Order: sequence, then C-alpha cells, then structure tokens
Amino acid sequence: MIDFNTLSKEELINLKQDLQKQYDGYLSLKLDLNMSRGKPCKEQLDLSNDMLNIKDYISSDNIDLRNYGILDGIKEAKDFFGSLLDIASKNIIIGGNSTLNMIYDAISRLYIFGYNGYTPWHKLDKVKFLCPVPGYDRHFDILEKFNFEMINIPITKDGIDMDMVEALCKEDESIKGIICVPLYSNPTGTCYSDETIKRLAKMETKAKDFKIFYDNAYAIHYVYEKINLYNIFDACKKYNTEDRIYYFFSTSKINFPGGGISLLAGSDNTIKDTLKHLSIQTIGYDKINQLRTVKFLKDKENTLKFMDKHANILKPKFDIVLNTLKENFKDNPILKWEEPKGGYFVSVNTENGLAKKVVSMCKELGVILTDAGSTYPKKLDPNDSNIRLAPSFPSIEELKKAMDIFCLCVKIATIDKMLA
Amino acid sequence: MIDFNTLSKEELINLKQDLQKQYDGYLSLKLDLNMSRGKPCKEQLDLSNDMLNIKDYISSDNIDLRNYGILDGIKEAKDFFGSLLDIASKNIIIGGNSTLNMIYDAISRLYIFGYNGYTPWHKLDKVKFLCPVPGYDRHFDILEKFNFEMINIPITKDGIDMDMVEALCKEDESIKGIICVPLYSNPTGTCYSDETIKRLAKMETKAKDFKIFYDNAYAIHYVYEKINLYNIFDACKKYNTEDRIYYFFSTSKINFPGGGISLLAGSDNTIKDTLKHLSIQTIGYDKINQLRTVKFLKDKENTLKFMDKHANILKPKFDIVLNTLKENFKDNPILKWEEPKGGYFVSVNTENGLAKKVVSMCKELGVILTDAGSTYPKKLDPNDSNIRLAPSFPSIEELKKAMDIFCLCVKIATIDKMLA
Repeated sequence: MIDFNTLSKEELINLKQDLQKQYDGYLSLKLDLNMSRGKPCKEQLDLSNDMLNIKDYISSDNIDLRNYGILDGIKEAKDFFGSLLDIASKNIIIGGNSTLNMIYDAISRLYIFGYNGYTPWHKLDKVKFLCPVPGYDRHFDILEKFNFEMINIPITKDGIDMDMVEALCKEDESIKGIICVPLYSNPTGTCYSDETIKRLAKMETKAKDFKIFYDNAYAIHYVYEKINLYNIFDACKKYNTEDRIYYFFSTSKINFPGGGISLLAGSDNTIKDTLKHLSIQTIGYDKINQLRTVKFLKDKENTLKFMDKHANILKPKFDIVLNTLKENFKDNPILKWEEPKGGYFVSVNTENGLAKKVVSMCKELGVILTDAGSTYPKKLDPNDSNIRLAPSFPSIEELKKAMDIFCLCVKIATIDKMLA
Repeated sequence: MIDFNTLSKEELINLKQDLQKQYDGYLSLKLDLNMSRGKPCKEQLDLSNDMLNIKDYISSDNIDLRNYGILDGIKEAKDFFGSLLDIASKNIIIGGNSTLNMIYDAISRLYIFGYNGYTPWHKLDKVKFLCPVPGYDRHFDILEKFNFEMINIPITKDGIDMDMVEALCKEDESIKGIICVPLYSNPTGTCYSDETIKRLAKMETKAKDFKIFYDNAYAIHYVYEKINLYNIFDACKKYNTEDRIYYFFSTSKINFPGGGISLLAGSDNTIKDTLKHLSIQTIGYDKINQLRTVKFLKDKENTLKFMDKHANILKPKFDIVLNTLKENFKDNPILKWEEPKGGYFVSVNTENGLAKKVVSMCKELGVILTDAGSTYPKKLDPNDSNIRLAPSFPSIEELKKAMDIFCLCVKIATIDKMLA
C-alpha cells in the first residue's frame, strides 16, 4: 500500500472515490460483526465443557464444600494457584467469579475503612491514581466511580514510564495507587520488564498506604510467545514493600468467563486486613465451583498445556488482524499498531483526531469496535487516536471482513483529513 | 419438672448436688457437639446432589451463559424467583452465592454513593439503624462495621414493636433504615403480621432515603406450618413507598449454602440505581450456576414440594428441642422459649444474667452454642438472657444429648443464682 503522504491532492481524491465505492458496497450488505470485547469464542468455551461433568464436593481435607464456611477459599484452590503463579498459598484469597469485583471491593474497602489503620480514603480531600494508557476501560471506570483523579502514564516498550511514576509518587502524598496489567496488557500487549517490576517494588512513595493494583489477568494467556513475568512479590520482599501489592488473577479466560473463579494475593498484612473486612461481607464464596475448577485444571503443567489449546484457537485470529494491518499499512504509516505476544487485543493508533470517526464509520457498516476513547480514563483519549481491536470472539470469516472494513475506514478517514 | 421457686434452700442444695454429678459425668465423656450455626445437615444437602448433574449452559433465550454478560441475571432465574416470591421479574437482580454479600454491597453503595441522588451516608455525622432484637448476628455485624448506631427494637408476637418504630422514624432524620427477617425470623421464628407489614409500608419517615432491609431468608422454609407473608411491595404500592424496600432472598438453605444464588428485589428506581453502580463493580455473576439452580428447582410448585423434604428432615430435630424444653421447663419457668413454625432456630431466654454462664458451661461439656449476646447489636444482650439454639446440623442422637446437657446447665446456673 502506497504511502498517502506521497500522493498528490488529485490522486487522493481519485483514491477516495474508489474507497468510497467499496464503503457503499459494504453499507448495502448490512453486516453485523463485533470486535469490541475480549470475549473468548465458542470454540474456546467448548474446551472446558468437561468441567461441567465434575460433581465432587468433598475437599482433599475432607470438608463438605456444599455447606457454609471457608472464607478464604479451599485449600486445593489456594495450592493450585499458588503453584501456578508462584505465590505462597497463605497469601491468596479465592473469590467469586470476577476479579473486577475483587478489585472494586478492595478499592471500596480502602475507601471506606482504610488500609490496616491508615486513614480511610473517603476522608481525604483528594485521592489520585496513576493510570497507564492506553489501558483497560473497566479499571478506569472503577476509579472514576470513586471520584479519584486519574493521571495518565504512558505505556512504553518495557512497561510504563517509570521515570514519571517514580517522580510523581515521591512527591505527591495524594497519589494512592496505580492500576496496571503487567503482562500482555490490555490493549497494547505490553509486558513489563524485570527492571520495570523491580522499580515498582523499589520506588519511594510519599503515600505510606500506596497500592499497586496488579491485575495479572493474562498471566498465562500467551498467543505467540510465553513470557515469564518477574515475580513482583520477590521484588517487593527485597525492599520490604509487599504491603503495596494487591495482585489479581482469574480463570475467566481459562475456563468460563461467566463461571470462573478469581483470586486476590497480597502480603501477610494485606491478607489479614482483607479477611477482617471480608468476614463481615460474606460467609464464603462458591466452594463447589472452586473445587470444580481445580479438579478440571488439575495442576500447573496441565493448565499450561490447556492454554496451548486457547493459543491455537487465538493465533489464526491474531494472524488475520496483524497480517491485514501489515498488508494495508506497512508502507503507509497512517496507522500504527503494536504486535502483542499474547493477551486478547491489538492496539492501533490512527492519526490524531480520527479514532472516533473510524469507529463511527465502522459502526455504520455494521462492524462494532470498542468505543474510541475507552482505553483512556473518563474515555478521553487526548489524541483521539487509539482504537482497541478484539479478535477473539468473531469467526475467522467475520474477522477477515471486519478487518477489511476497518482498514478501509482508516484510509477514508485519513484522506478526508488530508483533504480538509 | 418442679418449679424451682417452690423449693427450699436445702432442697435446692440437694438438687444441685444431683445435677452436679450429672455434669461431672458429662465432663468425662469429652463430647464434641455443635448447635451454634444454622447450617443444613448432610441429609438436607444430599437432597440437591442431582443439581450437580445439570450441564446446561444455553439459556431459554439462546444465550451462551458460559461467556461474559447479563449483569442482572438470566431471564429464567428472574422469572423463577419472580413467580416463587410474587415479585415482578423486572424488579429482581440475581447475584452471587450470598445474600449477606448483597446486603453488605447495598449498604456499602448507600454509604459511598447514596441512594439515587441523596447524600451518601458517609458524609453524614450520624447514621442510625433500627435492629429488631433478638436478631441475626451477621446483620448487626455489617451495621457495626459501617459504624451505624444501632437501636434495639423489641420483637413482638406480631413482628416488631411498630409503635416504637413509627415514633422513632417520624422524629429522627438520622434513622436511615431497619434490617429485619420478616418470616420465621432468626432466632425467634417470628412471622410479621399483615398489619406489621402494612405499617412498615405506610409509616412516615423523617429520612427521605429511609430503607427497609428485608431479608426474607426463610420465605419458604417452614417446619411446622406454612405461613404466607403479606407482600410488602403490594403494601408499599398503596403508599408510594416502594423505594424504601431492599428485599433479599437466596437458595442457600434450599440447595447448597456454599453454592446457591441470591437475589435483591426493589422498586424500579432501586433496580436502576443499583445496576448503575453494579455495572462498574462486575460484568455479571455466575450464570451457569443460575441456570443450574433453576433447572433443578424447576418452578414454584416443585420447589415448594422440595421444601417439604427439608421440613421432613428438620421437624424431628425441632421436635427434640421443643419437647426437651417442655419436659424440663414446662412447670418450671426458669427458662422461656419461642415455638417457631419454621426457620432454623429456637430462641430461649434464661433468667437475667445467666445466658453467658450457660453457654460457657455447655462449652465446657463439649456442646457449642452460638455465643451468648450474639443475637444483639455489638453482642450486647442487655439482660444476658437470650440464647439461640440451632438444631439443623447435628444428628438426632447428638441433638438429644446436647439438649439434655443444655437443660442441665440452665438448671445448675439458675440454682447457683438462686443460692447466691
């Protein structure tokens, strides 16, 4: 594809006419394609159907899991996740079906009650959070809900702009936390380097109750390459900063998004503080589903093999997205993108001011993308440039069509801008 | 059993010696019996084992429930509970496995965000709640957690002292709510009369955002007699006060306490307000378990028949408790008790100042009861008199022994007091 910047005005006008014909052709097809959310496809969900055959309800330590009790989760589940994620079982609490809910609850507890004797955040004039961008919309929505001021932190090749993070945290006591996805990040696919993680562990924070919401949602969700994340708890041990970590993980994208189990991991202090509050909130989460999940996934080795099956389904879809982008924009730098090694998304950047327009044009043709802006706090992308593509849910055929349409819309929008 | 008040001091001393011998005999047995919590027994749990054979995951409206989505619960579940409880489906949100969690979350939202535009409760100097006593310890624990001032409201034959409730609510704007169990109440088994419910619906409240936390935990959990509760939503409609109701129910004591599903019901405004916040907190609860539950329980008729099976298991246990109390104290009014028609508990009152002592004596003999005081806010029973007996979990044989020991301890403690 030729670089638009080398074309004359007349050539651009002619090209636009051709592209507009294609656009009108798609318009008449009344398509209904969706690349908006990171949802596993049916084929992925089918991988876990055998889980529904599991009828066990007695734990290995002979507890009847049908009844009340066991606030922090069953031993099997804590041991399983402990081994999978290299975290001590005693530092894990198993939750319900949603890490988002666990994150919300953890923030809510800090807001209402404060951490382990510190001032509850609702009593402070101002609470600020650092938000790596582009990032996960639902994270930002929670912070917005609590009326925290969100500060954008640029994503870098190695993770996030740690110089900026360190400088801010050192100076400003009202900065109470950061929320991040350290591996195959949503949406850029960024993987935090050892150095980034060590700096997060080491950095000085003016707020003594500073918290890192470490949503390791894609810990084992590789597509092209397995990447080992440096263990943040190990890093924190060295600097005695384990209390700053709230670590989250779930099986939502391993077995069933609607029926998985989630976990929170933290220091001894954090687990103790959390359970103190949690014991008032609930008698315990669904332990039958905890056992069902662990009996199905068995152990670390089996789970990683199982993730190969997910990767095998996802890889052809990511190939389509990345190859289509390459075919269309390799020599025409009007669109830039990240090449993720795993996760659920491909992040692209249009020229400034075009993301909303492209998403809206796609929508007109029946291709639903994540709303432009969603990858930024308050849905405000300062450049109106970032778009998140989610290739997992559509079929191969749908995806091909959707990507063709997406590329078409990028081109038309860009020419319109150039001619304006 | 002869009335202790008719005995001479010498007779009491002799009797005490006999009883003490029995006590010492039990002491040597090193028993381990537990009547402390309202847990279903194994036989009850076994009633629902077929639920674990259900592998369905496609809803009647053809939605794949394995995936993300459906924040407010699947249609089947809302229709099922709507029919069971005579509430419009649209006024129901299906939650996770715990109503306690739903209650906590609802209070937490009122505390942080306020109801539908009203001032968040955390911004108020003082929030007070009315607490019918004796009541459910975990309710009081939540209110204590949020630092609400709790005002004891006496339980009456018809429900609660509505004169007192009305007088307080009318005058005091800081009284923001009441938390209650309207049917087979924990622990007294009290069932609210039509009149009580109508007065709750009609009463004037100085706080415009006054809320009734209506935990209908035992809505269909009869043991001796099915009692129909007047529909509080119908009552409220008449006075345009539906917004004050937060109604809760769950299948915890129908299928599995650890693996059931819960619900919140409220007015159109309440559902809208709740979902607005809930959409930030989670993507949705475990829908596979929602479908599993409904496929198992089928419909209202089948569910009520199913509850007969629970009643058949529970009735002999309640018989033992109530008959043992009658045999021991019918003519000796040193212990008074309620005769519940359903629910999970028998509430007894010792003479003032003896509850803690009796519970502690029972414990010494290996019989664990709910801590004395637990049925009151902050665990402070002003008379140190109320004890909650929970007959569901132990076996018939265990229960007989536990009740004999309980009665023995009541007698010894009472004689000690009389001789003191």
